[in-house]
Amino acid sequence: MNKKANVVIVGASGAVGQELLNILNEREFPINKLKLCATSRSAGREVEFQGKKYIIEETTDDSFNGMDIALFAGGKASLDFGPAAVERGCVVIDNSSNYRMDPEVPLVVPEVNPEDVKWHKGIIANPNCSTIIMVVALKPIYDAAGIKRVVVSTYQAVSGAGKEGIEELTAQTKAVIEGGEYPPNKFAHQIAFNLIPHIDVFKDMDYTKEEWKMVLETQKIMNDDSIAVTATTVRVPVYRSHSESINIETKSKLSAAEAKKVLADAPGVIVQDDISQNIYPMPLFTSNTDEVFVGRIREDNTIENGLNLWVVGDQIRKGAATNAVQIAELLLKYNCLMEKK
Amino acid sequence: MNKKANVVIVGASGAVGQELLNILNEREFPINKLKLCATSRSAGREVEFQGKKYIIEETTDDSFNGMDIALFAGGKASLDFGPAAVERGCVVIDNSSNYRMDPEVPLVVPEVNPEDVKWHKGIIANPNCSTIIMVVALKPIYDAAGIKRVVVSTYQAVSGAGKEGIEELTAQTKAVIEGGEYPPNKFAHQIAFNLIPHIDVFKDMDYTKEEWKMVLETQKIMNDDSIAVTATTVRVPVYRSHSESINIETKSKLSAAEAKKVLADAPGVIVQDDISQNIYPMPLFTSNTDEVFVGRIREDNTIENGLNLWVVGDQIRKGAATNAVQIAELLLKYNCLMEKK
Repeated sequence: MNKKANVVIVGASGAVGQELLNILNEREFPINKLKLCATSRSAGREVEFQGKKYIIEETTDDSFNGMDIALFAGGKASLDFGPAAVERGCVVIDNSSNYRMDPEVPLVVPEVNPEDVKWHKGIIANPNCSTIIMVVALKPIYDAAGIKRVVVSTYQAVSGAGKEGIEELTAQTKAVIEGGEYPPNKFAHQIAFNLIPHIDVFKDMDYTKEEWKMVLETQKIMNDDSIAVTATTVRVPVYRSHSESINIETKSKLSAAEAKKVLADAPGVIVQDDISQNIYPMPLFTSNTDEVFVGRIREDNTIENGLNLWVVGDQIRKGAATNAVQIAELLLKYNCLMEKK
Repeated sequence: MNKKANVVIVGASGAVGQELLNILNEREFPINKLKLCATSRSAGREVEFQGKKYIIEETTDDSFNGMDIALFAGGKASLDFGPAAVERGCVVIDNSSNYRMDPEVPLVVPEVNPEDVKWHKGIIANPNCSTIIMVVALKPIYDAAGIKRVVVSTYQAVSGAGKEGIEELTAQTKAVIEGGEYPPNKFAHQIAFNLIPHIDVFKDMDYTKEEWKMVLETQKIMNDDSIAVTATTVRVPVYRSHSESINIETKSKLSAAEAKKVLADAPGVIVQDDISQNIYPMPLFTSNTDEVFVGRIREDNTIENGLNLWVVGDQIRKGAATNAVQIAELLLKYNCLMEKK
């Protein structure tokens, strides 16, 4: 990775945008020129990066002139500007769901399917946060024993709903503790001291879009449509890091000890599983990290080849920003930036 | 139910004891004589019930003289005094786990196996709270289509750990919001804005005792050892009502519409499932109720006969006190109190 890239961040003012900057810095991503863009609402704001000050510009088609990589933080910006970026020879790494299931667009988790970066046609999609966290834990199990079916229930932090989600949890919790009220705004119902079994909109068969993402994106990332996933996704009053209770039916038998070993050896995974010391992953202690934490690794004897895992990961870092920067690193590693036109 | 009973509550000073009194009152349980007992620590405290004042007495073997029904709120009291109560012709309804798996002791959820009350030999066990909430929802599915396997992940409220659990969540949440700290005491780790995948002690195969209860008690209550249950139990920062994400493999096909119908018709169940109006069960709104709330009823097409449910119930009421009082009602209905000796 001697090459340096010209990088533009679209949506630089939000939580994911800020985290993208943090991670580019931490991972010493080789930047030649950096440009920060956002909507007109945030344009003009000053942001510091590696000791230099940058002014956020309003995104236009021409924001991508001469740029190599555009990191889109989310929302509809990639629909509005993604094609213009690609036309100008700038590879789009898109954190939104806009292109994820497009068969022309690779959907990449570097620990799982890094090679899929190579066939990009200008856009590479960053998967859903819950899905990224799950597949990093599933991949070593899949490689060791195959996977037939996954039953997953999620416990998702409010920061999955952005800064407003965080602010609503804080303000509402304060109000409740002081005996007052704080009506829900970002969430459909009160989230303080409550659970909401509803993330994103409802779709086919009464599953939410979030639940369908975990089903369909997993199959695409793993390049295996035979993996059956059923999901129930739930918002919990936790600030950061998504947690997942995952039941797996493997094709061949994998003991708990074997599962622990393949997970411990896997890239991007940290096994936290010492029940004698009350050690298992918890969202409070896995936030601001880049790994996926796996614990409560148990055989499930209700089926021939069953496993239960408890998996936790920071959904803003590994579930979004870190994964996007890792994809950018792969673009340099595999030398698959685009020709400027 | 014309007969009136002499009722003693053992552990009258705690959260479940207080709730037992509330429910005896609400359900107009026919009480002749009422006696309130607890450890020496609480003895002497005054409690009002239906306009009369009662002094809590220290429990002794003779507390049960002349009494018909003893409601034990929990802990080891039923080990210390249960046999003495039975010797005196007083039927024990025990909310602890002490006798639940004893083959000589019926384990009863009135909506599921009321007839099991009839073969008691002096002690009837009240099941684990998470198990009660689950089996009330499972029973109508079981009757309609049979059940092969259940994968359950729980979201359990802090009041499952008693008053201290509630106080710890409040004090710790306040401290965190004010930027301070409040070290864990009742729980193994901070519960404010966190999740702890660990309830009760660790046992065989690295499952917790809470998880094993959901496996073994379900089979006993349903009188069917062939029902395979695998559980992951998790503490969440919610005050009251346990929630459960339940995946069910039935023996024959049950559509989501059929499942909704049998659940809506089942005793003790309220279906809350209108996603067009964002209606689904949530712990905040199901607390202080006696029913089990079921929503997010979906077919799971990853297996031939699959269903997903989201189930919520007040674990202090239906999960403990209400269920115990319902058992007492069955004792009167079936006329199976004991002869005084």
